[in-house]
Amino acid sequence: MFVNRVMRQAIKVNHAFTSASSLSPSRQAAKILSTRFYSSTTQPAPLDASKLQINPSKNLKALQENNQLVFGKTFTDNMLIVEWEAGKGWGTPQIKEYGKLQLEPSAVVFHYSFECFEGMKAYKDKNGKTRLFRPDLNMARFNRSAQRIALPGFDGEELTKLIKEFLKVDDRWIPKGRGYSLYLRPTMIGTQESLGVGASNKAMIFVIASPVGPYFPSGFNAVNLLATSEKVRAWPGGTGDAKIGGNYAPCIKPQLDANKEGFQQNLWLFGHDHQVTEVGTMNCFVYWKNEQGENELVTPDLDGSILPGVTRDSILSLARQWGEFKVSERKFTMKDLVKADKEGRIIEMFGAGTACIVCPIKKIHYDGQDIHVPLDPSDKTSQAGKLTKRINNAIMDIQYGDVEGPKGWSVVV
Amino acid sequence: MFVNRVMRQAIKVNHAFTSASSLSPSRQAAKILSTRFYSSTTQPAPLDASKLQINPSKNLKALQENNQLVFGKTFTDNMLIVEWEAGKGWGTPQIKEYGKLQLEPSAVVFHYSFECFEGMKAYKDKNGKTRLFRPDLNMARFNRSAQRIALPGFDGEELTKLIKEFLKVDDRWIPKGRGYSLYLRPTMIGTQESLGVGASNKAMIFVIASPVGPYFPSGFNAVNLLATSEKVRAWPGGTGDAKIGGNYAPCIKPQLDANKEGFQQNLWLFGHDHQVTEVGTMNCFVYWKNEQGENELVTPDLDGSILPGVTRDSILSLARQWGEFKVSERKFTMKDLVKADKEGRIIEMFGAGTACIVCPIKKIHYDGQDIHVPLDPSDKTSQAGKLTKRINNAIMDIQYGDVEGPKGWSVVV
Repeated sequence: MFVNRVMRQAIKVNHAFTSASSLSPSRQAAKILSTRFYSSTTQPAPLDASKLQINPSKNLKALQENNQLVFGKTFTDNMLIVEWEAGKGWGTPQIKEYGKLQLEPSAVVFHYSFECFEGMKAYKDKNGKTRLFRPDLNMARFNRSAQRIALPGFDGEELTKLIKEFLKVDDRWIPKGRGYSLYLRPTMIGTQESLGVGASNKAMIFVIASPVGPYFPSGFNAVNLLATSEKVRAWPGGTGDAKIGGNYAPCIKPQLDANKEGFQQNLWLFGHDHQVTEVGTMNCFVYWKNEQGENELVTPDLDGSILPGVTRDSILSLARQWGEFKVSERKFTMKDLVKADKEGRIIEMFGAGTACIVCPIKKIHYDGQDIHVPLDPSDKTSQAGKLTKRINNAIMDIQYGDVEGPKGWSVVV
Repeated sequence: MFVNRVMRQAIKVNHAFTSASSLSPSRQAAKILSTRFYSSTTQPAPLDASKLQINPSKNLKALQENNQLVFGKTFTDNMLIVEWEAGKGWGTPQIKEYGKLQLEPSAVVFHYSFECFEGMKAYKDKNGKTRLFRPDLNMARFNRSAQRIALPGFDGEELTKLIKEFLKVDDRWIPKGRGYSLYLRPTMIGTQESLGVGASNKAMIFVIASPVGPYFPSGFNAVNLLATSEKVRAWPGGTGDAKIGGNYAPCIKPQLDANKEGFQQNLWLFGHDHQVTEVGTMNCFVYWKNEQGENELVTPDLDGSILPGVTRDSILSLARQWGEFKVSERKFTMKDLVKADKEGRIIEMFGAGTACIVCPIKKIHYDGQDIHVPLDPSDKTSQAGKLTKRINNAIMDIQYGDVEGPKGWSVVV
């Protein structure tokens, strides 16, 4: 029974983003099982939501007004936490007062970056119900990120159940209103207390939650990008497709350098041909008339160096469902963009991620020149193209339960 | 005065490994100064060893026997710790009882891998004096690693002074005997308590210490390597030349995969031509008769993807001083190694790092074939070539103060 569940999850993990995986589902599942569940004679305990213990905080903090919310700065009264130990498996999940972690300075998370995370949101719909958006994709990616750095796997459905319980306990913290949400940060860290460089023999998942407002409170602000090739975000055989901590810190210095020159974000390039990869911490989309004269929405394919974003996947699914223009996952280069700009073929361009949904781009500085990306000139209040706004609204409609989306996208808690 | 000291340090940081830096010393210094010391109107406090507060542990732990020591598992009674805050600078350094760090779960070290570290050792010489080995190189690299991930710079001479004080307090923990030492782990982490992806507004340096024995207690054991090209350790424009946590966790899964197939370590390759880069967490050296028929010791050049190891630098310096064979820092490929193997030109091969000094290599599995590396057939007790053993002894002689090495290499505490 347990094995079956793990096997299902393992296969699901693999299926969620098939294009990112090089193993067949059965081999992937076998690998997960052999690595984590058959390595000792007694069966280590799986993550089990039914074991949850709830000891909520008695010191309830004051809520903030919606207009006071700053991303990731204020946290709710409680947190969800569950520990893992090699051989023993997952321990008792606990919801308890939000507070400091106490870790030995030798814990490997401080030295070798055994850490991965997810970003997801809980939304209040017009009926007061709480909704999650495609949590299965977050859980699948969280598992794959953990495995990339030899941290333990877990049953994603069980963690989703635990997160739902956490949302019930801290329900009052979920802000109401379109654009407002409770940002959830599931995090896994390796906590082995010795400096040997190997798989961590202890780990911990914690989930913390922070109420957030809309990324663009009063109409979109399009961003200026610095095309960056000297520093590289990810590479083949690296970890660009995993949401691990190590992908982030190295991007800050180039970001600060770009900020100093007046750009909000880096447009990360790769290779001698300057392939376009990501925008800051977002996936990158271009809507243009391609060289064949077709209207096309294009984003880089999941070649192992691109983060398989939940918003990315949702945009591709919706656009394919609409069937009004060509939708492509493929490589494109700065040369392609420069040519399209010169020939007046770029229609819109935007970044995509959980924090903003979409973030319109208005200018890219590359090789001493500026590429100007059109916005919607008829819109005086918001800097964004028509497709960008349509995508943003379509996704929000589903997230807030105003429109029935594809099966399983909006999950009522 | 302070500025001069910082400027000197900044230039020193740059000079220590000139080949790894793309900026001129003056531009590098200016950059350090502008980023960290002129960003607010009041001057933030520099790291200052004279402010040290010592509150040593009163619960002294039992020492371990030399033959019980395991790398990085047992720690001394105390730790050194100093915190930093944007605008304010470095706080009061403290030596206090070794114990848990208390950090908010939102601390950015857990999410975005704001963490870098050093590995260095303290040795007891035959007169009972404590010695460090080239700590200036560790401090220079620590500064460069921190800057690569937008963590604060500091005066390396001041941190060396603090480490010396720490060694005095925990003197009884420095094991006696050749091959024994106290391993020091200076670590810097970003501790900002909010999830925004940007430079951390708080940081902390801590130094912990663990008594260790010789890597090879009874003669060398040469290792088998799996040449690995599918997963890639580092990339141009990446962080391979910085000692940051993010470089380590992604290497564990490939290491476990290699272990399963009977190999101790990965030989990390790079590029379509399969350039040899590093061995596990060590720099890589080959001693061979090159295609011109010269005896040559070669290691990959510091192109930005190779860690500028202190042991690596020491081996190159000593070998150049000996002047008995050609010493080269340059790229070489698996094709070069396979050809040299077929033509019987490989003499020895070894990894190099602080933990082992040198680690002899006896076999490399590549592309379905084995490359057999000669050891010293006349030596029945130790699996290592003659040059490998000579280098190991020469470095140990200096570390333990038995031989006067180059100026500044062995620093008496």
